[in-house]
Amino acid sequence: MREGAQAPSMRDAYVIGAGQTAFGSFPGESYRSLFATAYDRAMASADALGPEDIDEAVVGTLGVGGRQIGLSGPAVTEHAGLSVPTTRVENACAASGYAVRNAVQAVKSGMADVVLAGGYEVMTDLSSDAAKYWLGVSGETEWERLTGTTFAGTYAQMASAYFAEYDATVDDLSRVAAKNHANGAKNPNAHLGFDCSVEDASGAATVADPLTLYHCCPTSDGAAAVIVASEDVAAQFDDVARVAGVGAASDRVGLFERDSYTSIPASAEAAESAYVMADVGPDDVDVAEVHDCFSIAELLAYEDLGFCERGEAHELLRDGETDLDGDLPVNVSGGLKSKGHPIGATGAGQIVELYKQLTGQAVDRQVNDANLGLAHNVGGSGGAAVVTLLEGVR
Amino acid sequence: MREGAQAPSMRDAYVIGAGQTAFGSFPGESYRSLFATAYDRAMASADALGPEDIDEAVVGTLGVGGRQIGLSGPAVTEHAGLSVPTTRVENACAASGYAVRNAVQAVKSGMADVVLAGGYEVMTDLSSDAAKYWLGVSGETEWERLTGTTFAGTYAQMASAYFAEYDATVDDLSRVAAKNHANGAKNPNAHLGFDCSVEDASGAATVADPLTLYHCCPTSDGAAAVIVASEDVAAQFDDVARVAGVGAASDRVGLFERDSYTSIPASAEAAESAYVMADVGPDDVDVAEVHDCFSIAELLAYEDLGFCERGEAHELLRDGETDLDGDLPVNVSGGLKSKGHPIGATGAGQIVELYKQLTGQAVDRQVNDANLGLAHNVGGSGGAAVVTLLEGVR
Repeated sequence: MREGAQAPSMRDAYVIGAGQTAFGSFPGESYRSLFATAYDRAMASADALGPEDIDEAVVGTLGVGGRQIGLSGPAVTEHAGLSVPTTRVENACAASGYAVRNAVQAVKSGMADVVLAGGYEVMTDLSSDAAKYWLGVSGETEWERLTGTTFAGTYAQMASAYFAEYDATVDDLSRVAAKNHANGAKNPNAHLGFDCSVEDASGAATVADPLTLYHCCPTSDGAAAVIVASEDVAAQFDDVARVAGVGAASDRVGLFERDSYTSIPASAEAAESAYVMADVGPDDVDVAEVHDCFSIAELLAYEDLGFCERGEAHELLRDGETDLDGDLPVNVSGGLKSKGHPIGATGAGQIVELYKQLTGQAVDRQVNDANLGLAHNVGGSGGAAVVTLLEGVR
Repeated sequence: MREGAQAPSMRDAYVIGAGQTAFGSFPGESYRSLFATAYDRAMASADALGPEDIDEAVVGTLGVGGRQIGLSGPAVTEHAGLSVPTTRVENACAASGYAVRNAVQAVKSGMADVVLAGGYEVMTDLSSDAAKYWLGVSGETEWERLTGTTFAGTYAQMASAYFAEYDATVDDLSRVAAKNHANGAKNPNAHLGFDCSVEDASGAATVADPLTLYHCCPTSDGAAAVIVASEDVAAQFDDVARVAGVGAASDRVGLFERDSYTSIPASAEAAESAYVMADVGPDDVDVAEVHDCFSIAELLAYEDLGFCERGEAHELLRDGETDLDGDLPVNVSGGLKSKGHPIGATGAGQIVELYKQLTGQAVDRQVNDANLGLAHNVGGSGGAAVVTLLEGVR
């Protein structure tokens, strides 16, 4: 079967609640307390639901810092007060995007009616060496990490290739950052919820040429949780979004093993699968959360997701199409750049934002008439990707 | 919905192929090459199948030794020559038991027709300190691992409690070891494929009182892979087993937080769910692979899985009921004790053994008239468990 296709008569899955902690630096919290808070907020948003209604849980985390390594999923659900089968999934920065996908499969399989999908990470207590190590572990081990390639270095290669192939410049990376910071400034959950100008971003210290500090997302602490349910259960709730499609794809873990540095093929494949499953196309998307771990990644995403033609991402951006008041607002939450990037929480956090947008709860950053939302979550430099399409129901 | 129940009209999942590497010490192999070998053998056992038929993959590993940490699933499927959505799951020693469960959900969900589920671990290149660390990470972190409790120490507490509560002795642990070594001696894939007497086991050096060396499984290298498919696909194959039931449960990660040390409640819950889903009971099981990481765990499993009443496990064992020629042969592969325990490969390896048994391919250790097989895979000291019931089709 091709990914994205599905057998007939399979039942639909719905998001009936979602919540997250703020993303930021929380020395007084632990990975367990953060996850419990996200869980509590997700449950509060689906207020007729009790812990006894949860059939199972899927938890995404990279396990940064060597906290609980084995059984890192059950360790957080037990602290949240749940006693349900819990599976940890890890696909680097796409861990909880995949957790949500697994939850959708669990509901569609008929083996569960209500599944908690979420993720967490605690990163701000790491030394800079430890942070570099833990980010590097999502790169290819033998030929990237152990030879000294940092994660910023990997994406810097993509940016250099993009600049060489098209007429984009470092200011376009800064435009991504400025747009996402402007959105994040409206999001009380954002780690870096302040404005940042194009000039400030372009003039900031270089991290990995051509990427400056403001072209790189922060390392953050945080957790996010989503409640996925069957149609029968969803019928009892007021704020509901349907999982119209979900697609995933893997690729070579090492960037150096891929043919192109100006595309993330796994993103394109995952998107195509999600579009097929939902029977929609990129033109139907009203709001999107994309994986801007480094600002170049947002430009590549526009093209891989079909929002524009190859080589035209920076023009879409310059035209303001992806601004909060544009035709296709992207990263209205602030994205990884401003909202923050607690690795295992990011994918589920994107779904939290879409759920809020599609059920009219996004307050200052609400996109008008948003009906179809897309979340795009990438693992590593593109060794895995998952794209989820949510459709507002009520 | 209660775990084990399922919505009506959900489609069945089948195992159509399975294979593994030998378990042992393979300094000339890597985690990638081992996984690729297991994959090749699984594909060879389903010989009409090509890589293009695989829709997705689920890979279980603890990631011992800090090889590929992020994207540890895609890192092995790419090396096996696959380009399919790959998700890593981790539930400590139950990682690939859960991977198989996820594969079953993927097929039942209608989102996939053919799913590769497997796992791997490389452990024998670790120093003894590193091995102790990596085994300890599946215990509870703050109050067990960091305070010095080893994994053998945790299970030793269970053995002491069992001896205090019932009239079992250290020789009963040795009887488990002797039985499993006798079986493993018939298994060319066993790590420790030699016989071991009750006297030798009881007289061996103490690891954690009352456990001796021969009451503890080895650390091993290895990989295993299973191909799970829909009914339509399975209809095209000759050697097929149906996934009659699969149940999972989580519990407190720390042993010290549980009410009883003479039971693993997650095992009992997972088994009950699997029995309900399959509409069978423990009396219907013809052959079982249970999680004997330490020999006491096999005795607890007999009781948690309902093979006998509480406190009677050692009598079942002494009566020879669980011998290869008994009424309910247990660990005919040699179990973790003799076959070996490459953490992430163990759960899928159990399914490999059941598939061989149920399709009449188990050669010297073939159980006669085996129709229903049970696999029992535990994470940590019982923070997670998964029980799978396979029924021979042809």
